[in-house]
Amino acid sequence: MHKVIYDTDPGVDDAMALLFLHRHPEIDLIGITTVFGNASVETTTRNALFLKREWNIPAPVAKGAGVTIDATRAEREWPSMVHGDNGLGDIEVPKTIDLPLDPRPAHRFIIDTVRAHPGEVRLVAVGRMTNLAMALKVDPEIATLVKDVVIMGGNFYVPGNVSPVAEANIHGDPEAADIVMTAPWKVAVIGLDVTSITTMSRSYLGRMATEGDGAVKLLDALSQSYIDFYKHAVEDGMMVHDSCAAVYVVAPELFSSISGAVRVVCGGIADGQTIVKPDGRRFPPGDWDGLPSHIVTTGIESEKVLNLIRGTLLRG
Amino acid sequence: MHKVIYDTDPGVDDAMALLFLHRHPEIDLIGITTVFGNASVETTTRNALFLKREWNIPAPVAKGAGVTIDATRAEREWPSMVHGDNGLGDIEVPKTIDLPLDPRPAHRFIIDTVRAHPGEVRLVAVGRMTNLAMALKVDPEIATLVKDVVIMGGNFYVPGNVSPVAEANIHGDPEAADIVMTAPWKVAVIGLDVTSITTMSRSYLGRMATEGDGAVKLLDALSQSYIDFYKHAVEDGMMVHDSCAAVYVVAPELFSSISGAVRVVCGGIADGQTIVKPDGRRFPPGDWDGLPSHIVTTGIESEKVLNLIRGTLLRG
Repeated sequence: MHKVIYDTDPGVDDAMALLFLHRHPEIDLIGITTVFGNASVETTTRNALFLKREWNIPAPVAKGAGVTIDATRAEREWPSMVHGDNGLGDIEVPKTIDLPLDPRPAHRFIIDTVRAHPGEVRLVAVGRMTNLAMALKVDPEIATLVKDVVIMGGNFYVPGNVSPVAEANIHGDPEAADIVMTAPWKVAVIGLDVTSITTMSRSYLGRMATEGDGAVKLLDALSQSYIDFYKHAVEDGMMVHDSCAAVYVVAPELFSSISGAVRVVCGGIADGQTIVKPDGRRFPPGDWDGLPSHIVTTGIESEKVLNLIRGTLLRG
Repeated sequence: MHKVIYDTDPGVDDAMALLFLHRHPEIDLIGITTVFGNASVETTTRNALFLKREWNIPAPVAKGAGVTIDATRAEREWPSMVHGDNGLGDIEVPKTIDLPLDPRPAHRFIIDTVRAHPGEVRLVAVGRMTNLAMALKVDPEIATLVKDVVIMGGNFYVPGNVSPVAEANIHGDPEAADIVMTAPWKVAVIGLDVTSITTMSRSYLGRMATEGDGAVKLLDALSQSYIDFYKHAVEDGMMVHDSCAAVYVVAPELFSSISGAVRVVCGGIADGQTIVKPDGRRFPPGDWDGLPSHIVTTGIESEKVLNLIRGTLLRG
């Protein structure tokens, strides 16, 4: 069983990944930590509690960061045109959910949980990297105690989605992402190179909702306006960004990858860009030297990924 | 006939492109301007005069910039491991060549020549962009008077060659390259996306030398150590970077491309990176808005390009 802490900012595609992590038989979802990004951390935390309640997820929810790790960074508007004003496609969600939060902030929850299960915990982070960076700052040793980190974020040999070279999760807190990328732990980066070509059509999701239980029907409902948003890039469907990271936990063989040190640009026109120095490529001495090598996914068997998502969600 | 000014830092692959421009029947090479890069501007200018003399090239040579347009930038060492200490693969070259230089600095030669042939001149720039940027600074109107600009430089969806994201010509003077990319003229960018997959083997070049005249035999001789250098990346051959730009002048149909505004990162870990915002892609307001759209080549018919080089060089 894979012990997973899911760091998330639900978020429409976050919701699908959450249901996948909850329902996959080889995954033990031991915690949900929230972060700002697709909406404010108050909203994403409320949404995590809402989905926990609707989907009967036993994992505790710990509330995380609401601002960038460098607090002097200018705040940006929430991407309400993507995820709706309420972060869940503007379906009806109660203002508050009557479920208890874990009393600890997310980064402390991560530290404690990793230390309780040394070598076992897999961090699946699909929002801004702020909570992970804070955990590393407070307790750097956890880098050697997690099993690995799987992130949805970045782009390498394809354009970005919030600038020509930056992806939203990384661009939302570049300094935090650079801390995560340069720490001495194993990171698998699931970026736009693979997620932007992994799209689920409205009808595919609709058929899942027809066959599936209430959880899948709720997922279908909250995904509709997100699919509408994607009409500029996808033929009546959605990129399932965060689910690709969730799938990687159990099926890394569906991905191809390169390895190399990764840095994140902080500031300037390339702000938030992820850059890999592929292992084995020769360059003059530079900013990637001596850093840990990570897995950067560059290819994906999208149809098999979609089938695995489908099969897992319909187990409910 | 294409009236071409060739801005160059010979340089081994520069030499091949020079012979191509000189010998192609549809190209009228009306000037050679030199710039620092593969070696000091003293050395590249001497080399241009040497090749002009050896190859009986009528075009005048004008000496250009020897430092970056932002003079506060730290100087870098010459890439002697690539082009040799003398910039021409360390074949024997006289210390001085007894031929006159054009009395004007390169940027003034460019301005005067463009103004003498409004709408006709094609600038083929295969070194650092310093001369072009200086010409634009001194006389911005030339942007509307050249026919177009074809540059060898940059990389978009492949790694760089002097850093994980930067190519040598652009990295050598990023501020100059950003001036060139954002000026209101037509630029076709021939970068590593196409040049790094266009390689000529040692034996292919050797057979050309056997069939060809003294000019081709000299080209073969000066290319040998460059081919040795490339052994980490090419199977006994060389990337013909600059010749790809020369070929584009007469055979753009051998390239596929996208269009979009291009910016160059100045400073930080991505220093010297070229970034295109592809036309038609949606992004929030940003640093590419309102800038002219250029041609960014992303594909090339390498074998046909090599055949065209071969056929042209053997016309001598």
